[in-house]
Amino acid sequence: MSGCFYGVGVGTGDPELLTLKAVRLIQSADIIGYLKIESGQSLARDIASQWIDKQTELPIHMPAMSIQREQIKQAYDQAAIAIAKQLEHGKQVVFLCEGDPFFFGSYIYLYQRLSKNYHCQSIAGVSSIHASSALAGIPLVQQNDSLAVLSSRNSDQELRYALENFASVVIMKAGKHRQRIIKLIQQSKREKDSCYIERAGQKHEKVEHNINNLTQENGDYFSLFLIVKNK
Amino acid sequence: MSGCFYGVGVGTGDPELLTLKAVRLIQSADIIGYLKIESGQSLARDIASQWIDKQTELPIHMPAMSIQREQIKQAYDQAAIAIAKQLEHGKQVVFLCEGDPFFFGSYIYLYQRLSKNYHCQSIAGVSSIHASSALAGIPLVQQNDSLAVLSSRNSDQELRYALENFASVVIMKAGKHRQRIIKLIQQSKREKDSCYIERAGQKHEKVEHNINNLTQENGDYFSLFLIVKNK
Repeated sequence: MSGCFYGVGVGTGDPELLTLKAVRLIQSADIIGYLKIESGQSLARDIASQWIDKQTELPIHMPAMSIQREQIKQAYDQAAIAIAKQLEHGKQVVFLCEGDPFFFGSYIYLYQRLSKNYHCQSIAGVSSIHASSALAGIPLVQQNDSLAVLSSRNSDQELRYALENFASVVIMKAGKHRQRIIKLIQQSKREKDSCYIERAGQKHEKVEHNINNLTQENGDYFSLFLIVKNK
Repeated sequence: MSGCFYGVGVGTGDPELLTLKAVRLIQSADIIGYLKIESGQSLARDIASQWIDKQTELPIHMPAMSIQREQIKQAYDQAAIAIAKQLEHGKQVVFLCEGDPFFFGSYIYLYQRLSKNYHCQSIAGVSSIHASSALAGIPLVQQNDSLAVLSSRNSDQELRYALENFASVVIMKAGKHRQRIIKLIQQSKREKDSCYIERAGQKHEKVEHNINNLTQENGDYFSLFLIVKNK
């Protein structure tokens, strides 16, 4: 009998935001997989580290995001082959994923390669939109509100529509495009609704309630804008 | 010194989706508050019940949602007064909240009444959008995707715009308006992208991957449609 491939959400940084289910699955796993970036860091592993002991580790080395798509695709292809081999030996494989595995998570790329032939299960986690709104003390949505979640990869036009028509907007991966996003927020007259958050739950977490205080520099990769009507 | 008023997210039904932080705060709380509907039920308390022992309980009796707004407002006003009294005595008060407290959570109404004068903190939880996509095995958003979260309270026009322009759409509180929403999904030609989920993580959870199989009857209050491009 083949094993199960779990995508386990570990939240955004605070190790206490792991769920009981995440802890149980990590502790009982045969194999623990996670992405490791070129610098050698693995945020997901760091968050879950206190529960990793004698399990076999399967780090997946990921080239820098700026490098072309093909290399990233190959890294996932190779990882899927390695994981499949373990599943065929009946091993339980846990893949650690920041936030929630099905919410912009790297688990999705492995799930798409493996779910047709193997038993896969995503274990929901606390995502960045919830960790960030808690940290900032800003209720994200209530009553009749609607919410749009976009990222800096969306066009100006898409971002502007959301800012003008949704009570609540989250713009993810905002760091690199901070100036562009601030400009769009200003054009939509939503500065007072806006808040900028970096690395919620991590050591160097940051909340800026007045976006006009943000410098011209780029921000962190793990960053977002929360825009909430009368926040 | 006054106590702290915590909104603690307990997820949507599976008691294992409580976070470690939620468990710690529930166990160490002086007072545990939660909404109790007319039938005597409290879903949030049920989910967290194994961690409630000798803490004092503060059930907040909530009139049926169909009854006029004023009575609900009064129930929150009275609850806020009762909680404030405990905080002034230095008590730590935990309010249990389904999903995430700041994501359509009842905690928001108490937070708005208390946060100006008392220390309040929201503890992020696993929300229904994440619990549902995990249960259905449908990745919610990836790469350049954008997500719109609306509810049956939104107008046809708003729902239609989201269905036509967002890769991923969640329509919450869908049960009562199921037929209307199905019609809009059909008009937007997104039947194949759609999935209907009720009570994710609870005893009678339900996933229907083919929305054309849904009956004419109303669905449950805790229900949503997930619409994801090429799900």
